[in-house]
Amino acid sequence: MTGKPLFTIVPEGSITTPQGFRAGGLHCGLKKTERHDLGVIVCDVPAAAAAVYTLNAFQAAPLQVTRESIGVEGKLQAMAVNSGNANACTGKQGEADAREMRAATAQALGLPEHLVGVTSTGVIGELLPMDKVRSGIARLPGSLKWDGGNDFCQAILTTDLVQKMTCAEVIIDGKRIYIAGAAKGSGMIHPNMATMLGFMTTDAQVDSEDLQKLLSAITDSTFNMITVDGDTSTNDMVVVMASGLAGDRKLNAEHPDWPSFVAAFQYVGEYLAKAIARDGEGATKLIEVQVVGAATENAARAIAKTIVGSSLVKSACFGADANWGRIIAATGRSGQAVNVDTVDIRLGDFPVLEQSRPVKFDEEQAAEYLKGELVVIFVNLHMGDKQATAWGCDLTYEYVRINAAYRT
Amino acid sequence: MTGKPLFTIVPEGSITTPQGFRAGGLHCGLKKTERHDLGVIVCDVPAAAAAVYTLNAFQAAPLQVTRESIGVEGKLQAMAVNSGNANACTGKQGEADAREMRAATAQALGLPEHLVGVTSTGVIGELLPMDKVRSGIARLPGSLKWDGGNDFCQAILTTDLVQKMTCAEVIIDGKRIYIAGAAKGSGMIHPNMATMLGFMTTDAQVDSEDLQKLLSAITDSTFNMITVDGDTSTNDMVVVMASGLAGDRKLNAEHPDWPSFVAAFQYVGEYLAKAIARDGEGATKLIEVQVVGAATENAARAIAKTIVGSSLVKSACFGADANWGRIIAATGRSGQAVNVDTVDIRLGDFPVLEQSRPVKFDEEQAAEYLKGELVVIFVNLHMGDKQATAWGCDLTYEYVRINAAYRT
Repeated sequence: MTGKPLFTIVPEGSITTPQGFRAGGLHCGLKKTERHDLGVIVCDVPAAAAAVYTLNAFQAAPLQVTRESIGVEGKLQAMAVNSGNANACTGKQGEADAREMRAATAQALGLPEHLVGVTSTGVIGELLPMDKVRSGIARLPGSLKWDGGNDFCQAILTTDLVQKMTCAEVIIDGKRIYIAGAAKGSGMIHPNMATMLGFMTTDAQVDSEDLQKLLSAITDSTFNMITVDGDTSTNDMVVVMASGLAGDRKLNAEHPDWPSFVAAFQYVGEYLAKAIARDGEGATKLIEVQVVGAATENAARAIAKTIVGSSLVKSACFGADANWGRIIAATGRSGQAVNVDTVDIRLGDFPVLEQSRPVKFDEEQAAEYLKGELVVIFVNLHMGDKQATAWGCDLTYEYVRINAAYRT
Repeated sequence: MTGKPLFTIVPEGSITTPQGFRAGGLHCGLKKTERHDLGVIVCDVPAAAAAVYTLNAFQAAPLQVTRESIGVEGKLQAMAVNSGNANACTGKQGEADAREMRAATAQALGLPEHLVGVTSTGVIGELLPMDKVRSGIARLPGSLKWDGGNDFCQAILTTDLVQKMTCAEVIIDGKRIYIAGAAKGSGMIHPNMATMLGFMTTDAQVDSEDLQKLLSAITDSTFNMITVDGDTSTNDMVVVMASGLAGDRKLNAEHPDWPSFVAAFQYVGEYLAKAIARDGEGATKLIEVQVVGAATENAARAIAKTIVGSSLVKSACFGADANWGRIIAATGRSGQAVNVDTVDIRLGDFPVLEQSRPVKFDEEQAAEYLKGELVVIFVNLHMGDKQATAWGCDLTYEYVRINAAYRT
């Protein structure tokens, strides 16, 4: 080990930074305001592809269509996405519309259909206005740019307040390769808007199977470890495309630079996941819960997610209340075995519980810490060496306002 | 079947209505204001007893002590309870304090220790101020009254806005017997106050084992089907005492009047459970979710609880928004198998989804319905004949205000 970082962050990087990718976005009329609502990522060559999908039983139609496309040869050359309408709970017509959206994109770009994926985010239960979608897709090729990352990012936003993208650089076989990502998501909804979409691009040369394994693994420790409100959308999806244009030889677990690639990949996933949590509906701060000393990784994950998802913990963070009783109560109801005599809890640097007994701390200083934009809750179970981290946000008046608002 | 109701409600009834029970309450200094914070129920004779306890791993000390008492011969003659301090996360000293509370109560009332149960609700992680508790317990016998139900109810309240009690009358062997209940609970907490306590009394003659089976069964369909905020307290407990003073012979499943007793028992549990949900922190309305047509009872229960616990559904009810997309999304993420093509949803009398497809409805009339004090969400899965009902409340600005407030 030289101490050299495994990867570096590319400050102005976007999903078009990796070689071979262009992106675009335009307004086709699905959103009421003149913002982009249709976007596309296109690769110069068929890219190795992998994806993870929502576990919600009511999976939206476009997810099925994308899954079919990737199933054919593990490749995608384009991903089309619309916001403003989720094409979820739309029955047979919704399926037909998702297929037509794929066919139209393939035709506009001159690609075979099975190299095109589609996804949608927005209102549930309304049919896509296909006339608008069709005419929009016909104009998509004209929107493509080598620096179209921002246009694409705008096209996928719903209630999001900020665009979420990042790019990492990593050296493989002595050559520079990039891994980039863009995401949207802030609550399940703005009344009925669907949650989280993630798009990752890289110019590394990786097989579809290796990409899938890697994506599934990092999803478990990134996208699956965030919760804004505990509600899993019908439309969640993360898709990754690898153009291979920057690599001389296959990159996989046998390759000496694989750990660097994994680290950069993990960074991009974690960055996007945290950005979604921080931009949670109504949120004023990011909450990070680190659980260590667990007997199993599953236990660590379940406890971290239970704490970060607790309405009481979230309210306390909003109120800057060092209310560790709620943290221990959430730990205890997580369904995991815990040793009730050995739990330590810290809020940032403030120990509040040691060996399950209250510790005197300076309430004012702790409240000052909790008023910050990042609250780290640290829990040591002292039962083993497994750990997990989860991210979420505080529960605020604004969350209630946004979600109590009438849809129309 | 004569069509005669199996039981009737006793309008002014309380936990002292069943023969043999007295109750009392007083202020011993645990609450800052001059409200009662120490209460007791006493029976003239050792009463058959049963209890259910929180599943939170961090079970408060008094629960262990009560469990021990009931374990000796399945009987209790007195239940002492304090509010203002939960005696939870208080280690060995907390256990010793719970034991001393039991011993002091037994001495004050002239009873053997194993016929006394104790329970506490209030701040987590602080030791009971035993001098106050001791002097309070010494005064408890003087507070006992044949109509002390109200005093007792006041003694168990924390953030509750209203007292919760009811009483049912049922005819067994041609004689009138009573089943009554009192409860507290409104959020997990007012900063750190512990949730739900239930106390039921009856003068029926029932064995401890039969009482335990019945209590466990009705708990599953009543107390365990409510959620205010998804947080399970360290101190939850429901205890039932049967004096047997109104019964000539044992009442059990073989007895012809058993169904009447069960119905009344179920009514008391459900009444208290709904009263807790309706009085949820910050709530403006009761939400009832009825799931029918499920393949298994477990599935029906899980789906009903997922829907009623969804922050998005709760916010929509607060905002009187007929947002069925959130209901179907909660159904889909419940972890239960559902047929995605056969779901019906009604809000009160308004069908909004049929066979998983949106139904046109009058949004204004639906909003008017949702503004009421009771919102019934009806979900038919069309997968079988099992069903379940869950209760909760809306998520409001006031919930956030209460729970963001600094503890001091």
